[in-house]
Amino acid sequence: MRVLHLRISYDGTPFAGWQRQVGAMTIQEAIERAVYLVSGEQVVVHGAGRTDAGVHAIEQSAHLRIDRGPPTDAIHKALNSVLPPEIRILSATEMPSGFHARMSARSKHYLYRFTTSPVRPAIARRYSYWYHASLDVAAMRAAAARLRGRHDFAALANNPKEPRPGSTVRTIQAIHVFGGPKRIAVHVKGDGFLYNMVRNIAGSLFEVGRGKHGPEWIDEILASRDRRIAGPTLPPHGLFLVRVHYPKLSEPGSGQ
Amino acid sequence: MRVLHLRISYDGTPFAGWQRQVGAMTIQEAIERAVYLVSGEQVVVHGAGRTDAGVHAIEQSAHLRIDRGPPTDAIHKALNSVLPPEIRILSATEMPSGFHARMSARSKHYLYRFTTSPVRPAIARRYSYWYHASLDVAAMRAAAARLRGRHDFAALANNPKEPRPGSTVRTIQAIHVFGGPKRIAVHVKGDGFLYNMVRNIAGSLFEVGRGKHGPEWIDEILASRDRRIAGPTLPPHGLFLVRVHYPKLSEPGSGQ
Repeated sequence: MRVLHLRISYDGTPFAGWQRQVGAMTIQEAIERAVYLVSGEQVVVHGAGRTDAGVHAIEQSAHLRIDRGPPTDAIHKALNSVLPPEIRILSATEMPSGFHARMSARSKHYLYRFTTSPVRPAIARRYSYWYHASLDVAAMRAAAARLRGRHDFAALANNPKEPRPGSTVRTIQAIHVFGGPKRIAVHVKGDGFLYNMVRNIAGSLFEVGRGKHGPEWIDEILASRDRRIAGPTLPPHGLFLVRVHYPKLSEPGSGQ
Repeated sequence: MRVLHLRISYDGTPFAGWQRQVGAMTIQEAIERAVYLVSGEQVVVHGAGRTDAGVHAIEQSAHLRIDRGPPTDAIHKALNSVLPPEIRILSATEMPSGFHARMSARSKHYLYRFTTSPVRPAIARRYSYWYHASLDVAAMRAAAARLRGRHDFAALANNPKEPRPGSTVRTIQAIHVFGGPKRIAVHVKGDGFLYNMVRNIAGSLFEVGRGKHGPEWIDEILASRDRRIAGPTLPPHGLFLVRVHYPKLSEPGSGQ
């Protein structure tokens, strides 16, 4: 029995998100099928998190338990040979038996990309959110700074039921707004994210960027704990999972 | 009768190139259909150049003669409302009657993009040429410098018949190799380009970048006038037409 850590990149465009579901192709299912094709073994591939339909991953992480199949140093190429080109396994590494892609994760890093131009982009239009007018990047940067640190992010989570107090507290370790005026990239790193939290952060920074609110509005949003106060959930195609971070112990090459 | 200059951006992926042809959708035909839909007029849209299947345009230029249809300041939005999202009209400008997108052009600017990484990219893989190992950007830069200026580029053109001496002389006004090590962009600006010349230049710089030849090999290629000496024709999906330049007289806003 081997526990393998997979680093995975994908273009979310053609998939119904990460998580296996009936009647639609998902990234999890595509990888599980590929593992079956190269090993004859039916396994569950556990992702570090479930990305929604249309969300991309520069580097997602997952783990699986496998008895048979190609040796560890050959398995990522074997998987790539049977996966669609929109999904690529970047590496496969053997880990200690306790490793769990979701539970062992220490933090996650996301990126939300904006493009501003009078006409919607023809090229690479699936990899950023387009807005027809310019955005105030300095104001977005000032707004982002107010999200840094430990806060109750209830107002920035799309959850159907009323959140329990305390259960929506998370820490944003780093948040940076790069670029401008035509291309803007919001990088966010945190210890955990609530449902749609990054797309709601992006939507709130967007409202500040187009002048609907000042940067101090972010404090109001956080204090409200009310989803209706914050900005819109921006579309999935601008969102990228950049990396899942693990403690040193279980990083490739150091855990064995 | 108006003569309109269209600035056009397109993602070449789903099209069989610029030029109208039987049995395949092309960019020229899609725009001609759109003009018919918004004006009821059947026109020919003359491009500044014919990009091949799979080649992208950040900004192509074209002209057309039209009697009816929306006013000039509204026509690009009308066209975009009926064009597929892979083609966007950036602007439409009325020009003096002598304006001709191809014959009035003074120079063209192209870009060829490389990505180097051990695993083929999953995201945006249609917008650069992938190579599995790193390329020597300094050597590519030194090789590119040898292409600058007026030369006989016969060895870098894919033409079926023997070129006449003199007919394959062109001037490269500027050529720059940016970026590295993971993303490399080759920008080339010249007064005219022979068939597949930019993709053959990219292929020859690629051979230098991966160490098959030194930068001085470029001089041998040019002196040979023999297509078999130069590097391969790299695939179309790494190539972008960046801009077509016109003399001041016929630039938007100055010609009327």
